[in-house]
Amino acid sequence: MSYRAPVAEILFTLRHVAGLGGVDPEDAQAILTEAGRLAADVLAPLNRVGDRHGTPFAAGRVTTPPGWRDAYATFTAGGWNGLSADPDYGGQGLPKALDAACAEMWNGANLAFGLCPLLTQGGIEALATHGSEELKARYLDKLVSGEWPATMNLTESQAGSDLALLRTRAEPVGDGTYRITGAKIYITYGEHDLSENIVHLVLARLKNAPAGTRGISLFLVPKILQDGSANDLRCSGIEHKLGINASPTCSMAFGDDGGATGWLIGQENKGLACMFTMMNAARLMVGVQGVGVAEAATQKASAYAAERRQGKAIGAAEATSPIIAHPDVQRMLLTMKAYTAAARGICYLTAAALDAAHGPEGRAAHDRASLLTPVAKAFSTDLANEVTSLGVQVHGGMGFVEETGAAQFMRDARILGIYEGTNGIQAIDLTGRKLPLNGGATVRAQIAWMRRAAEGLLKSPEPAFGHMAARLRGGVESLDRATSHQLAALASNRPEAALAGAAPYLRLFGLTLGGACLARTALAAAAARKAGETDPAHAGRIALARFYAENLLPASGGLEEAVLAGGSFTEEAALALAV
Amino acid sequence: MSYRAPVAEILFTLRHVAGLGGVDPEDAQAILTEAGRLAADVLAPLNRVGDRHGTPFAAGRVTTPPGWRDAYATFTAGGWNGLSADPDYGGQGLPKALDAACAEMWNGANLAFGLCPLLTQGGIEALATHGSEELKARYLDKLVSGEWPATMNLTESQAGSDLALLRTRAEPVGDGTYRITGAKIYITYGEHDLSENIVHLVLARLKNAPAGTRGISLFLVPKILQDGSANDLRCSGIEHKLGINASPTCSMAFGDDGGATGWLIGQENKGLACMFTMMNAARLMVGVQGVGVAEAATQKASAYAAERRQGKAIGAAEATSPIIAHPDVQRMLLTMKAYTAAARGICYLTAAALDAAHGPEGRAAHDRASLLTPVAKAFSTDLANEVTSLGVQVHGGMGFVEETGAAQFMRDARILGIYEGTNGIQAIDLTGRKLPLNGGATVRAQIAWMRRAAEGLLKSPEPAFGHMAARLRGGVESLDRATSHQLAALASNRPEAALAGAAPYLRLFGLTLGGACLARTALAAAAARKAGETDPAHAGRIALARFYAENLLPASGGLEEAVLAGGSFTEEAALALAV
Repeated sequence: MSYRAPVAEILFTLRHVAGLGGVDPEDAQAILTEAGRLAADVLAPLNRVGDRHGTPFAAGRVTTPPGWRDAYATFTAGGWNGLSADPDYGGQGLPKALDAACAEMWNGANLAFGLCPLLTQGGIEALATHGSEELKARYLDKLVSGEWPATMNLTESQAGSDLALLRTRAEPVGDGTYRITGAKIYITYGEHDLSENIVHLVLARLKNAPAGTRGISLFLVPKILQDGSANDLRCSGIEHKLGINASPTCSMAFGDDGGATGWLIGQENKGLACMFTMMNAARLMVGVQGVGVAEAATQKASAYAAERRQGKAIGAAEATSPIIAHPDVQRMLLTMKAYTAAARGICYLTAAALDAAHGPEGRAAHDRASLLTPVAKAFSTDLANEVTSLGVQVHGGMGFVEETGAAQFMRDARILGIYEGTNGIQAIDLTGRKLPLNGGATVRAQIAWMRRAAEGLLKSPEPAFGHMAARLRGGVESLDRATSHQLAALASNRPEAALAGAAPYLRLFGLTLGGACLARTALAAAAARKAGETDPAHAGRIALARFYAENLLPASGGLEEAVLAGGSFTEEAALALAV
Repeated sequence: MSYRAPVAEILFTLRHVAGLGGVDPEDAQAILTEAGRLAADVLAPLNRVGDRHGTPFAAGRVTTPPGWRDAYATFTAGGWNGLSADPDYGGQGLPKALDAACAEMWNGANLAFGLCPLLTQGGIEALATHGSEELKARYLDKLVSGEWPATMNLTESQAGSDLALLRTRAEPVGDGTYRITGAKIYITYGEHDLSENIVHLVLARLKNAPAGTRGISLFLVPKILQDGSANDLRCSGIEHKLGINASPTCSMAFGDDGGATGWLIGQENKGLACMFTMMNAARLMVGVQGVGVAEAATQKASAYAAERRQGKAIGAAEATSPIIAHPDVQRMLLTMKAYTAAARGICYLTAAALDAAHGPEGRAAHDRASLLTPVAKAFSTDLANEVTSLGVQVHGGMGFVEETGAAQFMRDARILGIYEGTNGIQAIDLTGRKLPLNGGATVRAQIAWMRRAAEGLLKSPEPAFGHMAARLRGGVESLDRATSHQLAALASNRPEAALAGAAPYLRLFGLTLGGACLARTALAAAAARKAGETDPAHAGRIALARFYAENLLPASGGLEEAVLAGGSFTEEAALALAV
């Protein structure tokens, strides 16, 4: 089966978890429906084509798979690229929460395709926030329309997670431009034939700049200069990867002939702040990619399980049952569906916080978005790995055969926990930078929000909720204690204990927050039923939230214990690893 | 880096967890060292070659990758194929535990290669146990030497997990032979150029046989008949797979020209019992494959983490540290190493139970092996997926690039949870068939064995054990309660509740049993230290067991809750999945 845009669930989650950011529900539904059509009809059919065809590289040129150019043209012509961008530059000015919902569908249909606008969006954010008026006037409308996609040129072979080690150099020419020289690797969509021009955003170091990350500057380096001539840069090769084969991962050489021409974005040596603007937008959207591919894998596995007949389910009339009738297969499918729904809630919630940061809530919402971004990125993409692997499992032997397509989801998803800051980096960011925000008040407020969801369940007399309230309450209290532990460890003379617990802490945070999101959908579904709505989806939403609470949320206790173990392993890790 | 045979850890685990089955430790060390040399020097260098080259198929013939034929010849010439087989047929008559240890190394070095002898071993078991003397005289020594490898022809497109749906037909000719006609899929090493002959073991159905699995018979169907002529069978194609690309996965057509000639193994319509003999041996060895590939992935990730420098670890003197110094990376590597060690202990323990079944313990050991086999298979291979995925993660962006080799481990490992009975089938087997053995006495005895390990820790005054005793005790009690729940659910009028909890129950069983295995290695290491041994590996073994207990075992509580939730989801699963 091919991808079906889950518009009803997306809209329900937006309305009852994240909020629609002032958009009229009917308008939102119309936008989502249209986006879903594009995703299902235009992008999804290219997903397998792209995986098989890849992006041949020859003589510095990259050819995208058949159909890719037309699809990109259709995508940009519809105005989808700049959905949440500033109307002054041709954007639609819609909330980021709605944009994230649409991005889920692009990526569910075709992850390798969705990556191109994702990176452009990061470029838009960086340029809009930090760029000069002149630079914005020259490039922003092209990025917003998507006519010229953007790239992020950060990584070098010696500088991955550690950008302090960057070596690419920039020299001022004197006319306001800079000469950029250096080699970058892992540049997604660094070269391709989707557009006439590509706008590279490049981190580089000025001569005499301070060492480390305080000496990094961000430059805009277009493939084609204003006079139509080619800039001094080229793609020197592409990687042979595990997945996202239709998304070219390029090595880039800048300045073979003396230096590529670049323009400074923001101030000299302040490139890290610009990069974080670009990166934070991208990090959330990578989480959204995780939701998209998890949804696609879940749909495919569910459809297969409804068709494939093996064994007789207990109580079944016929000799063989569709495997979806077997409890063990149901557990796999429900796990896939519940994790996907939880990650969706978290990502939309994070997007909504970004929207709210521009409203009366201001700073508090901005900080909330900062807190939630690493969770949205890492939790959603860890789950994407698990869900897509379960998708292979549900297909049995067929799942291992590439023709089926289940394995592609797993291969494609595997990059999500690595790029835009590995999930380990996200965990360290959450514990080390985000928990201390406002003396811990930001995280405490978020935990209070989760606790209110648990209390909402407790107060509701709905028997279908089962043990949902108790399990969510247990998760929230685990998270609360683990948070205190992490904050205390950070303030102690053994901060490495906090870092050692950072990964299980992030998982605990995501697991509990996801439970709170599902609790809100369950409460909303119960209220709708009480109000007389007969849509059977409401009972399904309650059952899904209950499954999550009773079968997945109980992991919270073990995660808390792992956090509280306080990295007792760090001192003897080398010994243990040497065995 | 390439594979390094972990001979010291393997021997330590054999000695202190599983037992050496009467083999002198020095002899065992000599055998393991020699096997490790073959694995590292001959098999490991072919692993990437095999992945890239695959097994081209043309005109019914399959060509193995360059070097494969020589390696197979070296392997069989060394007598490794029949290590645990009957000396009367040319085997070495060594314990299965030692055989499993060697198999771990073949598979760690080269999973696609290791699969060929694994299947032959299943054939040896089936023929030795159920075959007529005539058939054994004709084929068993060839299988034991490996001169003629064996295959298992079970699956058909409509019959995967459900063998009752088999359609391949067998007709008696009257001269003691049968004519076999039908189509099989997913036949590993169904055709290749490693040997002159291939011995296919084929499940088929006699005319007028009872419906379902009681009407299945097992046949020996050689590729080449005794007179040197080709049998009426052919490979009709191979699959394009996610991994194990050097292992040809064949579609087989039997009887295009009137029927392939086959000989009955065991009795008519009793093929299922023969198949289970073959399958059980293979299931354990698939678990061992999981241990092997997890070990290989762990070695590779550890070596990379020791080389790659990014970021400054807390308290480090230099500006950049090897990433192995970062607590978060340590957690990943220790998780990989601890899971691998736990799975190793479980697999060897299972093999030792099979050995003990032939000794004075007899039936009780046989039943113990029956109980442990699904755990060894499913837990080890689920962990292989997790460990190999972590291996990709440790490599960062490089992990996603195929050239690195980390992704191959992950791709190769993905089949292990699917073939020889999916891990869902293993979970159902454990709960539905194995827990009730001897009225629950078999499982209770195994839990008592785990409890004794926890008590051993409690009694030891070793401060380096940390919270190991308490955590293991917690796991054992969780498993005990979950076992009672499963047994009660099976006996109730809602047996589907037991099946619904089968997967988390198996995970809980493996997690706790693995903890008990590691506790035994830690106790042995502490005793050796106390006795004056200065090998730093002892401290490492204790630290690893402690890491497992404090960071991974705490998941037991959540798993117990999931089991005890009793499949409350089964009634509304369809509703939830329809959303």
